[in-house]
Amino acid sequence: MIASRPLSELLTTLLERPTFGWKSTDSHRIREDCVKLLAERAEISGLQLAAKIFGEYDALNDAQKLAFFEFLNEDLDIDPRSVASLAEAYHDAPTPENYQALAKAVEPARQRLFRRLNEAPGATAGIVRMRQGLRELLKDHPHLARTDHDLLHLLRSWFNRGFLVMQQVSWDSPATILEKIIAYEAVHEIQNWDDLRRRLQPEDRRCFAFFHPSMPTEPLIFVEVALTKGVPNSIQTLLADTGDALTETEANTAVFYSISNCQPGLAGVSFGNSLIKQVARDLSRDLPNLKTFVTLSPIPGFKQWLKIEDTDSEETQLEKLAAKYLLTAKDEKGRPLDPVARFHLGNGAQVHALHSGADTSERGLRQSRGVMVNYLYDLNKISQRATQFSKKSTIAASSEVKALVRRA
Amino acid sequence: MIASRPLSELLTTLLERPTFGWKSTDSHRIREDCVKLLAERAEISGLQLAAKIFGEYDALNDAQKLAFFEFLNEDLDIDPRSVASLAEAYHDAPTPENYQALAKAVEPARQRLFRRLNEAPGATAGIVRMRQGLRELLKDHPHLARTDHDLLHLLRSWFNRGFLVMQQVSWDSPATILEKIIAYEAVHEIQNWDDLRRRLQPEDRRCFAFFHPSMPTEPLIFVEVALTKGVPNSIQTLLADTGDALTETEANTAVFYSISNCQPGLAGVSFGNSLIKQVARDLSRDLPNLKTFVTLSPIPGFKQWLKIEDTDSEETQLEKLAAKYLLTAKDEKGRPLDPVARFHLGNGAQVHALHSGADTSERGLRQSRGVMVNYLYDLNKISQRATQFSKKSTIAASSEVKALVRRA
Amino acid sequence: MIASRPLSELLTTLLERPTFGWKSTDSHRIREDCVKLLAERAEISGLQLAAKIFGEYDALNDAQKLAFFEFLNEDLDIDPRSVASLAEAYHDAPTPENYQALAKAVEPARQRLFRRLNEAPGATAGIVRMRQGLRELLKDHPHLARTDHDLLHLLRSWFNRGFLVMQQVSWDSPATILEKIIAYEAVHEIQNWDDLRRRLQPEDRRCFAFFHPSMPTEPLIFVEVALTKGVPNSIQTLLADTGDALTETEANTAVFYSISNCQPGLAGVSFGNSLIKQVARDLSRDLPNLKTFVTLSPIPGFKQWLKIEDTDSEETQLEKLAAKYLLTAKDEKGRPLDPVARFHLGNGAQVHALHSGADTSERGLRQSRGVMVNYLYDLNKISQRATQFSKKSTIAASSEVKALVRRA
Amino acid sequence: MIASRPLSELLTTLLERPTFGWKSTDSHRIREDCVKLLAERAEISGLQLAAKIFGEYDALNDAQKLAFFEFLNEDLDIDPRSVASLAEAYHDAPTPENYQALAKAVEPARQRLFRRLNEAPGATAGIVRMRQGLRELLKDHPHLARTDHDLLHLLRSWFNRGFLVMQQVSWDSPATILEKIIAYEAVHEIQNWDDLRRRLQPEDRRCFAFFHPSMPTEPLIFVEVALTKGVPNSIQTLLADTGDALTETEANTAVFYSISNCQPGLAGVSFGNSLIKQVARDLSRDLPNLKTFVTLSPIPGFKQWLKIEDTDSEETQLEKLAAKYLLTAKDEKGRPLDPVARFHLGNGAQVHALHSGADTSERGLRQSRGVMVNYLYDLNKISQRATQFSKKSTIAASSEVKALVRRA
Repeated sequence: MIASRPLSELLTTLLERPTFGWKSTDSHRIREDCVKLLAERAEISGLQLAAKIFGEYDALNDAQKLAFFEFLNEDLDIDPRSVASLAEAYHDAPTPENYQALAKAVEPARQRLFRRLNEAPGATAGIVRMRQGLRELLKDHPHLARTDHDLLHLLRSWFNRGFLVMQQVSWDSPATILEKIIAYEAVHEIQNWDDLRRRLQPEDRRCFAFFHPSMPTEPLIFVEVALTKGVPNSIQTLLADTGDALTETEANTAVFYSISNCQPGLAGVSFGNSLIKQVARDLSRDLPNLKTFVTLSPIPGFKQWLKIEDTDSEETQLEKLAAKYLLTAKDEKGRPLDPVARFHLGNGAQVHALHSGADTSERGLRQSRGVMVNYLYDLNKISQRATQFSKKSTIAASSEVKALVRRA
Repeated sequence: MIASRPLSELLTTLLERPTFGWKSTDSHRIREDCVKLLAERAEISGLQLAAKIFGEYDALNDAQKLAFFEFLNEDLDIDPRSVASLAEAYHDAPTPENYQALAKAVEPARQRLFRRLNEAPGATAGIVRMRQGLRELLKDHPHLARTDHDLLHLLRSWFNRGFLVMQQVSWDSPATILEKIIAYEAVHEIQNWDDLRRRLQPEDRRCFAFFHPSMPTEPLIFVEVALTKGVPNSIQTLLADTGDALTETEANTAVFYSISNCQPGLAGVSFGNSLIKQVARDLSRDLPNLKTFVTLSPIPGFKQWLKIEDTDSEETQLEKLAAKYLLTAKDEKGRPLDPVARFHLGNGAQVHALHSGADTSERGLRQSRGVMVNYLYDLNKISQRATQFSKKSTIAASSEVKALVRRA
Repeated sequence: MIASRPLSELLTTLLERPTFGWKSTDSHRIREDCVKLLAERAEISGLQLAAKIFGEYDALNDAQKLAFFEFLNEDLDIDPRSVASLAEAYHDAPTPENYQALAKAVEPARQRLFRRLNEAPGATAGIVRMRQGLRELLKDHPHLARTDHDLLHLLRSWFNRGFLVMQQVSWDSPATILEKIIAYEAVHEIQNWDDLRRRLQPEDRRCFAFFHPSMPTEPLIFVEVALTKGVPNSIQTLLADTGDALTETEANTAVFYSISNCQPGLAGVSFGNSLIKQVARDLSRDLPNLKTFVTLSPIPGFKQWLKIEDTDSEETQLEKLAAKYLLTAKDEKGRPLDPVARFHLGNGAQVHALHSGADTSERGLRQSRGVMVNYLYDLNKISQRATQFSKKSTIAASSEVKALVRRA
Repeated sequence: MIASRPLSELLTTLLERPTFGWKSTDSHRIREDCVKLLAERAEISGLQLAAKIFGEYDALNDAQKLAFFEFLNEDLDIDPRSVASLAEAYHDAPTPENYQALAKAVEPARQRLFRRLNEAPGATAGIVRMRQGLRELLKDHPHLARTDHDLLHLLRSWFNRGFLVMQQVSWDSPATILEKIIAYEAVHEIQNWDDLRRRLQPEDRRCFAFFHPSMPTEPLIFVEVALTKGVPNSIQTLLADTGDALTETEANTAVFYSISNCQPGLAGVSFGNSLIKQVARDLSRDLPNLKTFVTLSPIPGFKQWLKIEDTDSEETQLEKLAAKYLLTAKDEKGRPLDPVARFHLGNGAQVHALHSGADTSERGLRQSRGVMVNYLYDLNKISQRATQFSKKSTIAASSEVKALVRRA
């Protein structure tokens, strides 16, 4: 572990000792370059080195990537002994000097490395890509979670809500961005450019995304919205190309019918809550006729729970059972079993209504026997509901849904 | 110290115990609100709380500010005992779980507080302002340096080179930005808008600044550039309004004649090195006739050194003595005594030429008896020179300057 | 007159015959170049010639300009004989061919010249500048009004309302534009940049201008607006720097307190009517609390009329007399004698209220003994009022103003 | 013919007399509204009327359109008798007053109508659409060419080169614009979005278009460019997706391989000449390695001429015959028979090289038996060549092409 040794010494050591796990001279080089970058003072050399390291990383195969992350995880870790003794010293004398010595010791060299790397143009996207690579290795190499923890901590700080910019994605947006909307849509697949146009161009359709200034053509997350009269009860109806768009003044309801994360390398940095709320606030301000903000959401865990519960699942019973599932099925921590429910209830939404036959796609039938749910975002109550859900696991539900559960 | 205790418990405690140093109910409130913000899960309440805290901060008087920073420094510090024992645990078993527990313990609650605060719109500028307030208190309250260390660490990460945007400031720039150029110019004062126009509008004048996307109307640092024929030897001549601008093709030299930091709250986050080099690279690319990149810089410590050295300082001798001062006068760490010299030599520049009678302003005469210096940025050599200066304290100088020293 | 002769022949003729009124070889050249441009087919040569002609024009002295416009007026005029015979031919046989022959003959060569000139980058501003030069000569050389008629006709077509872009001018606007606002303000002088800032930056101040895409940094006309509570009765109070701006929601009235044309070369192309109305419509949409749209206007002809009428003009009588002046004093065409009144009444506004002591500036006292007037723009009635004023010279006035007239 | 009668009188007349050719009350209304618009003074009513007229026009069927254009052509024509007598008056006394009276009389009311219509937002595109409708009727109703002449004259003035903006169309452009590139490509069809991407995204592909500020999402004309090593001899090779793009520094040749007009309503307003030359100049400035600017063009009239000439057309002979066709086949006015040749030679290009088997598409074989031609744009010679072609019909050709003709 290198944090407490001079970097020049480290450089010598690295060049001497046998590599572990490195298959080729090529993969040895990225390690050397990382150590050089940590030692480099001159700015231009630093930028060049950083760019070189990203190039080297992209050329690594899986085994080499593993070796690279092992290097970050082990060689660029902290020295806990040193941390412990500096913490004791700080306890005995809480001076600024002791605090700084401790603060320096608790930050692993890999964290400094990521910040140096980030100085190169376009580097932020490169670091997000590195974390994506790391996460693909995590399952089989769980000890790398230490490095993942550091990366997540850094990315949460860099992708802080205050740095994000919300923008509408429309048919006037650059093709560079639109092709990513097609690629990243995770809930209801976009078949092609004509399909995309139907979700962006009509007067009663909207799409909003968060962007980070350092990755201006990469949406981080986007939500697709339909403006409707009344709360919809079928995704196929909603997506059908009727050719008859509502005008802005006719619509009274905004439906968040699809929300998709775009960056696997940003897993764990949560954007969805902020996005839905800012979209709701902005739409509410710009289109005062909109009174209701709901989702039309899948219930991905419902069918599996049905089997487990061994419940008789006649068609007529489905809505009741789904209501029961959403309001009563809990995981070991006492949270709703359904992941989508967890997300929206955590945001402060309410279980508003259930609809059988609402998603007749292959996936809809497979996951939830075609049942979908509206979560209601009542802007005046989401803070309070989020707090109650967070503190007491209280699940907000409309009286209709509660009645369904009683009859289930 | 609160990091290891549940926040709800902390909230109760805070409300019960007597306040220390708080003069009014008003100043007590900001402390409560900070604790609430750390506990808050709901996003909207969080944004509102953060905005409220900035408002409360701006209304604090000096004594209240001191109390607020004491609170951050003491109450929201780490618990070193807990850090020490978690570090030992991680040493014994370097598992991801132990690492995360340690990582959580070493981060003070104030750091999390700053990140939560930053989620509000416009918050980054507010945090920079908070650090400015803190730094004004530091001299009389040096123990607050712990909090300053954390803020500096955070701001360095957020104002990482990769997040900065360089933009030309011209007579086409918004007045909002231009008035800040007038206000922040630290080297050669800008008297009024006409004076500003003379530095921006002629074809042989340029100004470039770094901006951060979260503070788009606040320049962080800017450099003023004159395009000249040959290396200039007088700042008054350079700034005189001759009405005769060179065309881009006539000029062969770019002169960085003034560089000013704009944000006291970002002291310690260094931008100047990067800015000068990117400007030099960009100008070099766009105007291939430019062959020489130099500064025309003050020598702020020269006159004081002259007195100390008790040297005979006849006018004819001044250039020789200034050369001697720049190349041989060192501080206790062995670095050049002159702060401007330290900056440019650290960037990889060379001491290129000395000029007596080059700054006949009151300040120029008072600080350096009118002598100025050109530092040369040779794009092909700055990396190497920066490294040699950093490693061996080697001061690069032209043969003419070296000859001056020999004759001094 | 050249329209009916081949251009090549014309070129020869021009070079041979003695110049009339041309003082130098230099001024002869622009004439030759114009004839060449009319003959030129090749696009690049055309652009170069056009740019050359603008350069030559800018170097002309007054006598040379006169000669240049004489050339346009006489040599590049139509051939009326040819027009007459072609018109007869078209009357006899209204075929497309006869129509085109006639259409070609009725367009003077100078009109084609202006269109060719306009192909060069930045040329539109150059042509506007040419007309400004022409208008300065018109008074002493009224026969040049033929050329002025053609230029005005062309500029009206090019500066058609559909091609104009309205933009807010704010403290965020480029200094290039702001310095023109200072320069062009015609009603209440802007002393300096701080004075300008007071008219742009406070929340209760606005400024809007029309721009043409070909002259993007040149405002054509701008209007300054104050948001107030109630209708103001003093320009000095309105412009005073109180430091207390109203918020957007507090204001209920928008006051157009100054409107200035910027381009003397566009005299006769009317923008003011459209600008006031679009500003009123846009403000009304964005700030629904605004209920009243008025001006605070000078009465430039009032004092002179007072003298003519030889009326006793005691202070207490001034408002009554001013009301009488505005509602009853007419020019020889039966229109209101006061030019500002003609403008606003023609736009469909109403004489709303009169205020003595409302403009205590030197000019205010000199022109109108300090009296000012509010013209009211009632968005629901301006069409109808404009029509009635235009057709029947009906002057709309509030009952209060009518009462003043009765008591005068 | 109405120009010389008061409009109020006209309005009465129109309402009384029997309509000619109007099939419905609906189509009568547009005529009334046009007359009202000509009479209207109030600005807001004018904008509303104009918008109403465009709506009414879009709802007309073909017979109604014909009636509408008949109305413009006949009722809103000039009064030639009046023109003739005013021309005589001007001849006798060339005063400004007489000139203005004549100028007013020679402008048909339809011309004023178009300018009034244009004041509404988005109206320019509407007028272009009207002319497209008119041109579809021209063939069967040639007398409408008078109205077409006026519209063309107006559009040429409004779409003057000085008002156009050239912009690169890239994969970063809005989808709104890109879908029009797909729709309007007239030479080598773009199959779908992936095909489009291949023409825009690789480093060695470019696309540039002219836009008018009043129709910002409507390209007027665009040219597609390939950067190559050497002059290409096959369009299929050029368009093939090799996946290997040249870098900007590797390329030495810019190939204009497709140029398409987008607006049938702007037929007769020529943009192509200006566009090619500005693209060539800009590329030449930005990529100094580019030395050669050529087209790869079809020879649409070749096969038909081959038949007429009854020439033996063996494959080996094709290039010789095509050379002969381009250099010697003339129309009745002595210009090259081939329309594409006329365009490029008129621009100042040279016939550079001929390639058999260069376009093996169905259309390429059908029109020109697969032969294509490079026209060379030599920036230093295009002015001179354009002049010589225009004056003496001189066809510039390389020595190789001339040799081909000799051997043909």
